[in-house]
Amino acid sequence: MQNFQPIINDIVNETKRQKDKGKVASYIPELSNIDPNKFGICILDTNGIEYSAGDSNEQFSIQSISKVMSLSMAFSMIGEGLWKRVGVEPSGDPFNHLSLLEMENGIPRNPLINAGAIVISDILISNLKNPKSDFLKYVQGIANDSSISYDEKVAASEKRTGFRNYAAAYLIKSFGNLKNDVETVLDFYFHACSIRMSCKQLVKVFYIFMNRGNCLQNDNYLKLPQVKRINAIMLTCGFYDEAGEFAFEVGLPGKSGVGGGIVALLPNKFCVSTWSPGLNRKGNSKLGMLALEKLTTDTGLSIF
Amino acid sequence: MQNFQPIINDIVNETKRQKDKGKVASYIPELSNIDPNKFGICILDTNGIEYSAGDSNEQFSIQSISKVMSLSMAFSMIGEGLWKRVGVEPSGDPFNHLSLLEMENGIPRNPLINAGAIVISDILISNLKNPKSDFLKYVQGIANDSSISYDEKVAASEKRTGFRNYAAAYLIKSFGNLKNDVETVLDFYFHACSIRMSCKQLVKVFYIFMNRGNCLQNDNYLKLPQVKRINAIMLTCGFYDEAGEFAFEVGLPGKSGVGGGIVALLPNKFCVSTWSPGLNRKGNSKLGMLALEKLTTDTGLSIF
Amino acid sequence: MQNFQPIINDIVNETKRQKDKGKVASYIPELSNIDPNKFGICILDTNGIEYSAGDSNEQFSIQSISKVMSLSMAFSMIGEGLWKRVGVEPSGDPFNHLSLLEMENGIPRNPLINAGAIVISDILISNLKNPKSDFLKYVQGIANDSSISYDEKVAASEKRTGFRNYAAAYLIKSFGNLKNDVETVLDFYFHACSIRMSCKQLVKVFYIFMNRGNCLQNDNYLKLPQVKRINAIMLTCGFYDEAGEFAFEVGLPGKSGVGGGIVALLPNKFCVSTWSPGLNRKGNSKLGMLALEKLTTDTGLSIF
Amino acid sequence: MQNFQPIINDIVNETKRQKDKGKVASYIPELSNIDPNKFGICILDTNGIEYSAGDSNEQFSIQSISKVMSLSMAFSMIGEGLWKRVGVEPSGDPFNHLSLLEMENGIPRNPLINAGAIVISDILISNLKNPKSDFLKYVQGIANDSSISYDEKVAASEKRTGFRNYAAAYLIKSFGNLKNDVETVLDFYFHACSIRMSCKQLVKVFYIFMNRGNCLQNDNYLKLPQVKRINAIMLTCGFYDEAGEFAFEVGLPGKSGVGGGIVALLPNKFCVSTWSPGLNRKGNSKLGMLALEKLTTDTGLSIF
Repeated sequence: MQNFQPIINDIVNETKRQKDKGKVASYIPELSNIDPNKFGICILDTNGIEYSAGDSNEQFSIQSISKVMSLSMAFSMIGEGLWKRVGVEPSGDPFNHLSLLEMENGIPRNPLINAGAIVISDILISNLKNPKSDFLKYVQGIANDSSISYDEKVAASEKRTGFRNYAAAYLIKSFGNLKNDVETVLDFYFHACSIRMSCKQLVKVFYIFMNRGNCLQNDNYLKLPQVKRINAIMLTCGFYDEAGEFAFEVGLPGKSGVGGGIVALLPNKFCVSTWSPGLNRKGNSKLGMLALEKLTTDTGLSIF
Repeated sequence: MQNFQPIINDIVNETKRQKDKGKVASYIPELSNIDPNKFGICILDTNGIEYSAGDSNEQFSIQSISKVMSLSMAFSMIGEGLWKRVGVEPSGDPFNHLSLLEMENGIPRNPLINAGAIVISDILISNLKNPKSDFLKYVQGIANDSSISYDEKVAASEKRTGFRNYAAAYLIKSFGNLKNDVETVLDFYFHACSIRMSCKQLVKVFYIFMNRGNCLQNDNYLKLPQVKRINAIMLTCGFYDEAGEFAFEVGLPGKSGVGGGIVALLPNKFCVSTWSPGLNRKGNSKLGMLALEKLTTDTGLSIF
Repeated sequence: MQNFQPIINDIVNETKRQKDKGKVASYIPELSNIDPNKFGICILDTNGIEYSAGDSNEQFSIQSISKVMSLSMAFSMIGEGLWKRVGVEPSGDPFNHLSLLEMENGIPRNPLINAGAIVISDILISNLKNPKSDFLKYVQGIANDSSISYDEKVAASEKRTGFRNYAAAYLIKSFGNLKNDVETVLDFYFHACSIRMSCKQLVKVFYIFMNRGNCLQNDNYLKLPQVKRINAIMLTCGFYDEAGEFAFEVGLPGKSGVGGGIVALLPNKFCVSTWSPGLNRKGNSKLGMLALEKLTTDTGLSIF
Repeated sequence: MQNFQPIINDIVNETKRQKDKGKVASYIPELSNIDPNKFGICILDTNGIEYSAGDSNEQFSIQSISKVMSLSMAFSMIGEGLWKRVGVEPSGDPFNHLSLLEMENGIPRNPLINAGAIVISDILISNLKNPKSDFLKYVQGIANDSSISYDEKVAASEKRTGFRNYAAAYLIKSFGNLKNDVETVLDFYFHACSIRMSCKQLVKVFYIFMNRGNCLQNDNYLKLPQVKRINAIMLTCGFYDEAGEFAFEVGLPGKSGVGGGIVALLPNKFCVSTWSPGLNRKGNSKLGMLALEKLTTDTGLSIF
């Protein structure tokens, strides 16, 4: 594998030159108070060599990136039966996510949109003894890092303002596609989104999707076909309404969160994470997107 | 005014001959247990003369018919400001009522769909000291009949199963168009829907819309322009996705409920109510629709 | 009947005081060149007495008002079978008229939206020997006025720019709900819309809907139930996405056109037309709407 | 590279055992008359070694597969400006493709749905001297095979019945996103879809997307970033509403057509085409999908 340090140093320099750093998410105080000048990046290659620059040790709220981890845990527990409860197609439509649910009888289009992750949360609750602590242990285990934790303040804020998620959950419930009650499911969901990690921790978790299901310590978490499926879903559905654009510009499976984190990977090669809190119009980290475009353009590394 | 007794006797006979009486609502036990052979009809003319036949004294769950009464009370209390919170256009689209909310930024299309009545409930809660008892007294007052009451069992059942209404309420809340919390608003809404009345009681309440805002005891409840507006809304929006069909076949402003009740009126002439629990495909009482069609066809009385 | 002259004089004075006269339709030169200060009004009562003021003798392009006349002719020719080809429900959704067609398998929601009038045109073509001249004679006959004519320039302009109507027609055709070819159907449709009439001529044509199907010369054109149905459709569907608003503010069945004309009626009482080329945001004549609101408010005449 | 012959022999045997071969497209006679038992497969690896089995020499109507070729030609001619006229996001919504156009002001979601390919056709017409013959020569050139030709009968049949494509084209035209007239654009579009090729010819054409823009004869047709972008679009949008499913099950960029053809590729490794006329519920070749699933599962070759 190549030495990624020069390119990520370049990227950090380029992001510093950018005047428009996007707009920090403002719907809860815990997110809106973040310094918009933060930028971190970390690459972990298949041999376990780590390259990093900027604020790569600072933890941030991973938000929707957690959807890949809950999908991973649920998929490894119940297998293919999962696809009876949630689809694998891109959501396509930028707005109207509730109307899509209505048209499709309460089966969310895919597990990486809010509605889909709510169903995945319901599956985990039905299959775990202590859902919230079991899930956190699962994530800590993959990263081999017990400092990863929920942010109770963020979870509480999301709960107070997450009316749209309540609407989605009740709509799914009206179609019979939630087995547990809405409050329990959303409590889990909001906690999962509140997990804090740094860029360095994120690449360790996503190492399993790059490395055929095995983490750095070589424990197996997913079968190879499962890994491929999760990667396919990340590629087609991982960036809200910008999934096509990301596949087009970057060409790697990945996932973003409104906390400003992005993580992406090239199977059997490397895993990369970025963090910059300012978002573009579509809700993805502005500088993170630029960084990943530059990375794949300059190195020529992409799945295509 | 003419003698309506012969025509309503005819109607009762004709409904008895009908083999297909529609399908009784089954989503809560309190509605599904009703005898599908029940049929009542009552006409109250502008002079206060009452004509009735069949099970016109038996109380049933008025359900969505209550939406006209809560609209009436809210409109009389806050006036034209009400139309900033809810529209006056037919909903048009048979399904996707939530997606319409999304496209229109949380302003329900009209006050007679569930989403609209939820907003009206919110307005009443903000303006009444004891919302549930004040609203019941308002209805009892118009009818001059203190035997009208909530059905607590029905309200509780609706609450247990009304996930779609929860979804609508949270979606409206997400747009900032609910001031009170969702539980309080829906508790009021489910109670209003649970009110029990007979055909004879219903025509007394709707007498105010036929008689320029004045009830039988001659107390004034609404100004004339307000009455006209409520009648216009009933005509264009009173029958779910069958509003156009009802205006077309019957030609009277009115409102139906899934409990099998229908009430309609010809301004300055008469008010009519029917009750038959079996519903057609669109959720309106099957025999009630037939009865009103026959009434207006045989008498030639309609607003057109 | 009352003397309407004072009220219509008042209305003309009030419209003169209005500074914002709306925006003249600009998509074809023939419409955009009209003087925005024109205003005409005419009332014809059930006894045949005519009251008029302003530019009530000047002919203008009636545009969508023609949809009521083609509906009337088709309905009188093929009767109830017409409702298999077109619905009677308000379109509700302000935009997406094509998507509604898709969801409803090519059956337009009602005969007064473009898609519905295109189907009505197809029906007339299938049932008339010389469709365009027969239809014009029908309109001339009702008004007893052979000076009513097509405006060939307007029809040609509409054809050159009417891509959206072509899209609707081909979509309907794809569902099998057009029997004739698209070019023929749209040629008829664009001609019907291009008819020129004055306010005075318009009330004579719509007299049949006010007078139980009989024109001023007492010839019968429609059966009473047919008249009632057309009036019901005008009330619920006659004003694009402002139908509910119009029923709510004015309370009369009617129809508007982008040429700035509006015609409305109170059954068995009177028929009224206005013309003012400036349109409001919803595509209805701004001053015409004001005039009709004032008329019904000041006289207290409405169907509600 | 590995020897693909054994696996494709296995695949042919397995397809022979399948009883349900899907449903042959029936909307035009030229497609409906094809023998449903036909099955061909061909693999061309990066070294130019060809493996084939079954009816791999028989030509069939490539239909929507042509959309990738017209995209390729237009992209190489006008570059990034192309993305102002058409998007790169999956269409998501299974039905309502016209309503999506309406919401997005006439910019089709991506170049591989009909609406998008119609815009691409318009671009080619504006940029080619003899659009139809120049495009055919372009395809023949890549494949180094002048026997590739249009099927005039198929083109004529599509024209006679393609009302939905007319609707889409006129809708796009109404938004100003077609520069040429609809008849000219659709004549080109229907011809492109009518191209006939065999499995062996198809892999030669798609070799350029697998081989960094260079064909077997080593002529360059596209720059590397352009190839990557087209591959990304094929992966996210190449299989109608089954794109997510295909990425998920097969994990290769590709494109299908209603004629029963599918072509897919693993960058820098191989290109594969299948042909079996029976379609699944989503409009993709049933046995072709099975074949490609088996190929990637058994070989472990995929982009993920």
